[in-house]
Amino acid sequence: MALSMQSSLPTSVPSLNRIVIFGVGLIGGSFALALKRANAVKQVIGVGRRAETLRRAQSLGIIDAIGDASSVAGADLVLIAAPVAQTEALLRELAPHLKAGTVVTDAGSTKSDVVQAARPALGDKIAQFVPGHPIAGREQNGPEAALSELYQGKKVVLTALPENAPESVAMVASAWQLCGAHVHHLSADEHDAVFAAVSHLPHLLAYALVDDIAARKNADRLFQYAASGFRDFTRIAGSSPEMWRDISLANRTALLAELDAYAAQLSSLRALLVAADGAALEQVYARAQSARQAWIAAIEAAEQVRTYEQGGD
Amino acid sequence: MALSMQSSLPTSVPSLNRIVIFGVGLIGGSFALALKRANAVKQVIGVGRRAETLRRAQSLGIIDAIGDASSVAGADLVLIAAPVAQTEALLRELAPHLKAGTVVTDAGSTKSDVVQAARPALGDKIAQFVPGHPIAGREQNGPEAALSELYQGKKVVLTALPENAPESVAMVASAWQLCGAHVHHLSADEHDAVFAAVSHLPHLLAYALVDDIAARKNADRLFQYAASGFRDFTRIAGSSPEMWRDISLANRTALLAELDAYAAQLSSLRALLVAADGAALEQVYARAQSARQAWIAAIEAAEQVRTYEQGGD
Repeated sequence: MALSMQSSLPTSVPSLNRIVIFGVGLIGGSFALALKRANAVKQVIGVGRRAETLRRAQSLGIIDAIGDASSVAGADLVLIAAPVAQTEALLRELAPHLKAGTVVTDAGSTKSDVVQAARPALGDKIAQFVPGHPIAGREQNGPEAALSELYQGKKVVLTALPENAPESVAMVASAWQLCGAHVHHLSADEHDAVFAAVSHLPHLLAYALVDDIAARKNADRLFQYAASGFRDFTRIAGSSPEMWRDISLANRTALLAELDAYAAQLSSLRALLVAADGAALEQVYARAQSARQAWIAAIEAAEQVRTYEQGGD
Repeated sequence: MALSMQSSLPTSVPSLNRIVIFGVGLIGGSFALALKRANAVKQVIGVGRRAETLRRAQSLGIIDAIGDASSVAGADLVLIAAPVAQTEALLRELAPHLKAGTVVTDAGSTKSDVVQAARPALGDKIAQFVPGHPIAGREQNGPEAALSELYQGKKVVLTALPENAPESVAMVASAWQLCGAHVHHLSADEHDAVFAAVSHLPHLLAYALVDDIAARKNADRLFQYAASGFRDFTRIAGSSPEMWRDISLANRTALLAELDAYAAQLSSLRALLVAADGAALEQVYARAQSARQAWIAAIEAAEQVRTYEQGGD
């Protein structure tokens, strides 16, 4: 049933006896629910700092049992889905219990820093770690927000290490495909450069605009006249400040490069405005409009193909 | 019926014998449909450059007849809803036919430039011109996109001139209120400063980001990983390049001031990133997040009040 819904599925459902998930909120919880729905896992163990959250996840059927770092000993697959700042400490904790044959992956939004943290934390077990980043989310958080279909049709980027055995990468890829995701492969540096441009910079820009306006003496009047364009433009400024502080710092080098490129773009637009060069201004706007239209058309075409493959699901 | 839906309605429905609308697309067409639905107008005459568009508007019941500049002679109210760049020429054309007692308004997104153009164009009839800006729109254009409910619950800003008789301003305000809009009053300069901050700058920023990315060698790969945050952030970069060229130039002074304030904000965020000052970065993000949350809460509260006043409509 789950198999028929996906065009690029592994040929056989991996029979995972046990997975351990560190962090049973939206991301980790949705991974567990999706694998359970696919009948691909026998037991899901949840690990986390807050006993209350783990109990809620258990009563929601997301996890079957509550464990600790030592639970990884008997696991086939381990997912770190806790805030990125905790990744290194968690890897250090679980490393002594990690047996050959167990594969560890993560769900962090940045990858070079995770790899850098993982090497000393895992030592000679680094080959067992396959870094990943699912491109999916919702505004809600916590186990209650978890959905078995969260990853359906979404991208997951794996940034495999040179040390990884192909079977380890394939195992992580299979698990995500069973969640309905499309798996892509990039290097950690490529990943971070791409997401600095299309995600991290826009977040910083949206936060900057709202804060700029909120700091004015006439902020109330300004917000009073802000309409739907402003609302959409700034939606991502509603995201978690802690999470985006961590991402900004973790991907600082690539983000600074993007910020500088953008500042240069703004300063050339400024020059066009000063010169009242309407033709050149219109050219920039028109290029942007048509690039965006082409992008939206490509997304919609991909969605139609997916719907077709899924038999209209 | 229409009267009971609005809390701040004029005490009596103005009985407009004739209105003339220059430009019968989304904005002008919706104005006509709304006044017709409110039974507030006997005859709507449409004027425009394209006979075909006017005929479509007529067959859609938006206008009752097709006219020309001389049609303003017998009108109570005239709305200029053509592209802003045409406003001056249209005012010059209609001025000779304008009789005392007829009030002219417009729907342009910028106001100081319109006032500047209107003074020489209308000469000693300037007191009959009450500039306005309805804050409403859709992605579609043309008469087919017009909706009688487009202005329901939306803001309309009037930027009355010192020369305007209070009755002229009241007449334009009443017409918009009959369309379901909330009428606000600002000076033209205040209007332009406010919209430079909350609308014109965000448009320029969104165009700048998309064009910056589209110009890269790896643009395809970047767009491939752009997700819903990017989609919302750049939605306004799908707007008409011609229209936004005109707005950018028309409101150049205020837009430049906003662009400079924003560039200063980005450069202070850059310094925080360089210093890896996570606490200060988080503070900016958190201020922005809470300002936006407060704004959204205020919008939602206002919408609930409106729903209540409208008896759940």
